[in-house]
Amino acid sequence: MTRVAVVIPAGGSGRRMGGALKPFLVLGGEPVLARCVRPFLDRADVVAVIVALPPLLHAAPPAWLMADHRVAIVVGGAERGDSVRNALAAVPADADVVLVHDAARPLVSPAVIERCVAAAAAGRSVIAAVAVVDTIKVVDGDGVVVNTPDRARLRAAQTPQAFPAAVLRDAYDRAAAAGIAATDDAALVARFGVVVGTVAGAVENLKITTAADLALAEALLARTGEAAPGVQ
Amino acid sequence: MTRVAVVIPAGGSGRRMGGALKPFLVLGGEPVLARCVRPFLDRADVVAVIVALPPLLHAAPPAWLMADHRVAIVVGGAERGDSVRNALAAVPADADVVLVHDAARPLVSPAVIERCVAAAAAGRSVIAAVAVVDTIKVVDGDGVVVNTPDRARLRAAQTPQAFPAAVLRDAYDRAAAAGIAATDDAALVARFGVVVGTVAGAVENLKITTAADLALAEALLARTGEAAPGVQ
Repeated sequence: MTRVAVVIPAGGSGRRMGGALKPFLVLGGEPVLARCVRPFLDRADVVAVIVALPPLLHAAPPAWLMADHRVAIVVGGAERGDSVRNALAAVPADADVVLVHDAARPLVSPAVIERCVAAAAAGRSVIAAVAVVDTIKVVDGDGVVVNTPDRARLRAAQTPQAFPAAVLRDAYDRAAAAGIAATDDAALVARFGVVVGTVAGAVENLKITTAADLALAEALLARTGEAAPGVQ
Repeated sequence: MTRVAVVIPAGGSGRRMGGALKPFLVLGGEPVLARCVRPFLDRADVVAVIVALPPLLHAAPPAWLMADHRVAIVVGGAERGDSVRNALAAVPADADVVLVHDAARPLVSPAVIERCVAAAAAGRSVIAAVAVVDTIKVVDGDGVVVNTPDRARLRAAQTPQAFPAAVLRDAYDRAAAAGIAATDDAALVARFGVVVGTVAGAVENLKITTAADLALAEALLARTGEAAPGVQ
């Protein structure tokens, strides 16, 4: 069986939410981060979920996070890439596949996760992505439109991003050696010549960035009629 | 006072909604199209709202649409650009500004409309647009990522799009003379050398393209606590 490790960088400061730590906001009666972790723990092939936490939380991690023995925590860094690097160092050496998932995407579905795992288990590096509904304009610094790229060729990147473990490790090693800051894992491996593909994400798999996003996620949860499981 | 004309192309077939005519779907107890038209009619400077309807509906337009004497209807065309062209021909000759608004964006706010009108009244051609939250990837025909444009330079175009009346008329005249099909009005005027700017849209000003979008719009309406006004 493929051995899957999951990396969740939750070390950010949540500046756009007025300083609140987004992964610890409550959604449907449960922390956003708890919802991000659970669908991975529901898979038998997931051998480790490595969560990068801010230093204060790392010193006193919440009990609900540590309830499953496969969850491990590391200290997050100043930037997302630093958090991923720290988490990657804690991924078990025999993991075949590494998934990186945003700590602010609590509505990721089992089907999206499965597509990511299946692709990476077959040796591909992929990101979950969805079609772009709106017309996208490229603007200059004054907001003047400079061009309109063909929408059929655009995708909105989501997470998980999924990689054969050796591919992601190698990219981070080479980035560290070259002094390159990693911001986007797919862009990083692509920089080193790896072909990155896409698998179908889901519109519901939104990233909670603003208070409006949180309200929207609540509405989506209410729509599915899901009962809030509460925090263990 | 600036004289504002509004063009609403509602002639499409709604193929993505299983053949339903999207502007006639009910949202919060009222047709989507009724919600698209009302915030414009609420403005004293709007002298005409020209709605392009599919032929069957044009022959028997709904009474709620025709209740305001400023509303006029024209027959829609096969493509959006054909509908806008037909509507443009019915815009009063003394209109100073023309706004084009999607018939599937029922949650457009007075503030967004005001920004569009103010810009066009000052001689600018603009589109309402919002920041792009997700990372956008450009893919090839196989879904392989070919590049990642700088997100800070991307905007998601919404409507209204707003133009000095002469600018939009001129662009359509030149397009017709050159045999160019118009799909996006801002792209069309830009093609003829007009600088197109952006004004702030709103995340809530979503386009209803799928059943999930309709559910989301219902949730957004419920959140604002708006009472359904019912259909006159």
